[in-house]
Amino acid sequence: MSKGVVLFSGGQDSTTCLYWAKVVFDEVQALSFDYGQKHRVELDAGAAIAELAGVERAVVAVPSFAQLSDTALVGSQDIAQPDGELPTTFLPGRNLVFLSIAAGLAAERGIADIVTGICQTDYSGYPDCRDEFRIAMEQAASVGTAQVLRIHAPLMWLTKAETVRLARRLPGCWDALALSHTCYKGQRPACGECPACRLRAKGFADAGETDPACVAI
Amino acid sequence: MSKGVVLFSGGQDSTTCLYWAKVVFDEVQALSFDYGQKHRVELDAGAAIAELAGVERAVVAVPSFAQLSDTALVGSQDIAQPDGELPTTFLPGRNLVFLSIAAGLAAERGIADIVTGICQTDYSGYPDCRDEFRIAMEQAASVGTAQVLRIHAPLMWLTKAETVRLARRLPGCWDALALSHTCYKGQRPACGECPACRLRAKGFADAGETDPACVAI
Repeated sequence: MSKGVVLFSGGQDSTTCLYWAKVVFDEVQALSFDYGQKHRVELDAGAAIAELAGVERAVVAVPSFAQLSDTALVGSQDIAQPDGELPTTFLPGRNLVFLSIAAGLAAERGIADIVTGICQTDYSGYPDCRDEFRIAMEQAASVGTAQVLRIHAPLMWLTKAETVRLARRLPGCWDALALSHTCYKGQRPACGECPACRLRAKGFADAGETDPACVAI
Repeated sequence: MSKGVVLFSGGQDSTTCLYWAKVVFDEVQALSFDYGQKHRVELDAGAAIAELAGVERAVVAVPSFAQLSDTALVGSQDIAQPDGELPTTFLPGRNLVFLSIAAGLAAERGIADIVTGICQTDYSGYPDCRDEFRIAMEQAASVGTAQVLRIHAPLMWLTKAETVRLARRLPGCWDALALSHTCYKGQRPACGECPACRLRAKGFADAGETDPACVAI
């Protein structure tokens, strides 16, 4: 029995990865993180999608970011992308911590495969979404647990439009996307204005598709 | 102003690292983790030592291990070292998560230096205490935050006896060691029987020194 641990926020990308993993592995374990994100409504979306997908999901509390960081997703900074700087929505260490927790869980349970929705192509400028980071993290996680851990990032080199087209081809995924949450502001219906909303809208537009979440709402 | 973030459990090794960092950097930030460890009395030791050292210390809650792991430090397994297997006190992902949280904090605050007490010489067989892990983690943390982060492990190649001798030479460290806590069972006075107690006792014995914690108690 092959098994994959999917980092699953309840957003578009991780929902697509969840359905990708359902095709690729015999069994899937979803991991969601309650890390003080203002858009924690995504956790409700994640619960609904995991139920629809018939996938076991654990919600892991990660209070360290809200305690230590002032960046926009968890702290007092406004959402902004200052010229020549990282966006304020970049939460330093987020994917490091999430993948480390997943690695610990995978190693203890004898699972070799971890799946994340990080993507370098149409991305938000986050350094921990680059393939260079995936490779380095795979190495650190494997050495640190003395087990071969593979970190899969099936969306790494896809444009947002290609991710939309992939979702079309993954059985059940399109219906799940109707339930997914992306808006950084945590608004449902989505605000349509924040960087996450704009990136999502562009992907569906470029693919010539209507976002099923918009239809559902 | 140079600043170092020290992973600080309140044990012998991290206390030595704290005083090493006080010599090496202008300013020191200690980070302790409340991760469901049964020997959480080490957090009280850490508070007392940080006060003695005049160092700012943050205690970060990391509930994921108690939620996801059944290994001996946080779960129901007994303390044991089965032949050819990792000790049950190895908590998969622990140093990955701790260093990831430290990396996030360091990156956000413009700090380049992280200090950990991991040691490959007289160690407990934990894969995340090896220098190979330190190097891989340094790379992942730097790439993942787009900043140069250095992970220092001043005890990496020291025997436990050499660590004791180093502590003798670091101003103030010996008095702090009297307050430090090592016992996995969380007993004070220490049980003297668990692997952590035995390793500590061997170091002081090999160095021809009396453990100041024993004198204090």
